[in-house]
Amino acid sequence: MTAVDVSPQFLDLLRQRFGAQCSTAEAVRAQHGTDEGAISAPPPAAVVFAENTQDVQDAVRLCNAHGVPLIPYGAGTSLEGHLLAVRGGISLDVSRMDQVLRINAEDMTATVQPGVRRKALNEALKDYGLFFPIDPGADASIGGMAATRASGTNAVRYGTMRENVLELQVVTANGEVIRTGNRAKKSAAGYDLTRLMVGSEGTLGIFTEVTVRLHPLPEAVRAATCTFPSIGDAVRAVIATIQMGVPIARVELLDATTVGMVNRYSKMNLREAPMLLMEFHGSPAGVQEQVELVQDIAAEHQGQDFEWAETPEERTRLFTARHNALFAGIQSRPGCRCISTDVCVPISALADAVLDAVDDAQASDIPCFLVGHVGDGNFHFGYLIDPNDDGERARAEQLNERLVRRAIAADGTCSGEHGVGIHKQQFLREECGEGAIAVMRAIKGALDPNNILNPGKIFS
Amino acid sequence: MTAVDVSPQFLDLLRQRFGAQCSTAEAVRAQHGTDEGAISAPPPAAVVFAENTQDVQDAVRLCNAHGVPLIPYGAGTSLEGHLLAVRGGISLDVSRMDQVLRINAEDMTATVQPGVRRKALNEALKDYGLFFPIDPGADASIGGMAATRASGTNAVRYGTMRENVLELQVVTANGEVIRTGNRAKKSAAGYDLTRLMVGSEGTLGIFTEVTVRLHPLPEAVRAATCTFPSIGDAVRAVIATIQMGVPIARVELLDATTVGMVNRYSKMNLREAPMLLMEFHGSPAGVQEQVELVQDIAAEHQGQDFEWAETPEERTRLFTARHNALFAGIQSRPGCRCISTDVCVPISALADAVLDAVDDAQASDIPCFLVGHVGDGNFHFGYLIDPNDDGERARAEQLNERLVRRAIAADGTCSGEHGVGIHKQQFLREECGEGAIAVMRAIKGALDPNNILNPGKIFS
Repeated sequence: MTAVDVSPQFLDLLRQRFGAQCSTAEAVRAQHGTDEGAISAPPPAAVVFAENTQDVQDAVRLCNAHGVPLIPYGAGTSLEGHLLAVRGGISLDVSRMDQVLRINAEDMTATVQPGVRRKALNEALKDYGLFFPIDPGADASIGGMAATRASGTNAVRYGTMRENVLELQVVTANGEVIRTGNRAKKSAAGYDLTRLMVGSEGTLGIFTEVTVRLHPLPEAVRAATCTFPSIGDAVRAVIATIQMGVPIARVELLDATTVGMVNRYSKMNLREAPMLLMEFHGSPAGVQEQVELVQDIAAEHQGQDFEWAETPEERTRLFTARHNALFAGIQSRPGCRCISTDVCVPISALADAVLDAVDDAQASDIPCFLVGHVGDGNFHFGYLIDPNDDGERARAEQLNERLVRRAIAADGTCSGEHGVGIHKQQFLREECGEGAIAVMRAIKGALDPNNILNPGKIFS
Repeated sequence: MTAVDVSPQFLDLLRQRFGAQCSTAEAVRAQHGTDEGAISAPPPAAVVFAENTQDVQDAVRLCNAHGVPLIPYGAGTSLEGHLLAVRGGISLDVSRMDQVLRINAEDMTATVQPGVRRKALNEALKDYGLFFPIDPGADASIGGMAATRASGTNAVRYGTMRENVLELQVVTANGEVIRTGNRAKKSAAGYDLTRLMVGSEGTLGIFTEVTVRLHPLPEAVRAATCTFPSIGDAVRAVIATIQMGVPIARVELLDATTVGMVNRYSKMNLREAPMLLMEFHGSPAGVQEQVELVQDIAAEHQGQDFEWAETPEERTRLFTARHNALFAGIQSRPGCRCISTDVCVPISALADAVLDAVDDAQASDIPCFLVGHVGDGNFHFGYLIDPNDDGERARAEQLNERLVRRAIAADGTCSGEHGVGIHKQQFLREECGEGAIAVMRAIKGALDPNNILNPGKIFS
């Protein structure tokens, strides 16, 4: 399928309705047609800046009436081409819908507009003794995070957007507003539309309100790094930690090269060896118990003594450096773009999955970094390619292909947290089979019969 | 819509394919046309006993080709009329598909056939140091529990079937077999078909394999009862416990009348006062810490000292008695049937929700019992009606109506764990709104165009 041409008449209709909230300026369009991944496409024909639910409804209705693709845009931090205008159409930017609407501290829930970013939400929660744990590397929007079923470093303990979105307000393809759930902790009332919408990547509806679950700030927090003689030792220590049922809050893997990149980008002084970054949450006694257990496990796998990040500032610095690993990688090779991998496997398959991919990467000439939310069985290689060298891109894609196929063979997934977008469509087919894809297509067809909502994503 | 007549020719086709696995005996049909709820309907025209996935596929294909409704049947323990043949058709009994197919102890997952019951699964897990926590009162089938999004007493800590089903093998309405996920702990790969199927009550597909998450048996377990001068005090103690973030494993409410019914049915000797049944899981030190915290909270709300169930046998006896509260209630009024309520509200609304309903019930002449998974904000009144007294039934339904409407007004749900079935359809509409129901219907229409899969349930 080719891109839909947006007619001058349609652009006039948009301008009539949205005035200065509609832009066709080249720079604005270009910004909205690029994400943090490695794929390029022509920009959208226009960008509409929605300021409220009514704006979203009107934009959707106009697009639906004229068969024009509409691509929701939050913070532009996706990695798999989710917001690229591969079928033409317009971008619907919801970043101005950035209000925290309600904080129900007693119920530990918050309702926000989709453009609220994760750091802003946590800022708003500061005085309540609560926090929102989901933290993809980028300071992403809550709407975008819900749309890609994002997770991050805290997911091993607190779950992903799947577990932490309680309900959504959604504008469907015909411009109607629906509510997908309620604020009860559990419900057996009808189809789970919330979970269907979470991870639907803008293809089933546009989120205009997101109600998330919050968590009490832990009484005690401790963070440490621990280095190991090999990646295998580090990974095996993680597997043992998870299998023992330790409720560790964060456990992140970096290989020696990546630690070096992070040191240079974030002006850190970490020991350049395979490393786990860990954080423990709980009561003081509970944290102490976890720390002793994991120190014993690490020692059994040749880990060095823990090095502690003693203050909240040091902890923030450490995990901010981890979150910036993508930029540290990109800075290590000026002018490069990054092809990110994102597999997730059952924990028993993690050592093989990581080590096979390390061997594969070492045998190639593509520079790369390795980070992982390994407590979940999720890890990322970033292959740092010269975007003008088709050979490099092809070789990096081959590395990714082999990595994904091994993950699928191990009963894992081609995407732990970044989503499918454009880049993972073939892998999704291999993972799910044509029957499941047919079910997804049937749902898409039923909810968006004119195929205007982010068409060409997840499946084409 | 009226019931579909099943022709003698269709029954012949079933008998040709299924032989002795197909029964039209009146007793068998009657058994498959009744659940543990209070609604009656004519029985299905026949019962097919599936022994494997191929049987399910063939039954579905025959029904789909002839437009005959097909109602999946596991253990027959549902409460909202889920398995009643309100549109005619046949019952597909999967109870013979009762094999535990795979236990992946290292990944803490198990894959079972749908007819495996929760107690049998835990029996199979005994030697692995693992358990499956979801425990509706009845010894329900895992397939049925997935279909109704069941939970139970452990959900406050371990989640419901929503959180504990990792993937499903499903026979869709056209007889194809699909897989909805994988065994990775998290995934952002495509629509969340697993969560869409969980809670779909047999209307979107028939489950033929269920892969569930397991949990390590806690190192230490302690269980206690605590009585309070009033229901309000007990509920307020629970709210404080949850808001403090105590990871309590079970916290069940019974009112004084219900404790009396339980004493008589289960030959117990519990103090007949508003009571919390609690269980604490963790390391020995962690359990001790939780117990001290909750004892302090209980004391602040006029709770008596904890009475401990010291041995595993005593704990089992205590929670079995709790699980049998429905039967204890029914025994208290010979010949009665039970109309169960099942609302769930945000925790801050729990005291009002419970106390208003208590006042309402006390002002009526209908005998009832009160139990609740109150840590989740979920509680059940069981109104024990004379099934031949239409006036009683109507008054009990009015009590239920007021209870549900108050829960919806408090941003809660009409069903915490029993599902919608036939009984909650009007409430589901009030809770979700017509727009969300239209989305559910569109999904149903897309996946089951001939409306053969448990038609007339969730929405009619």
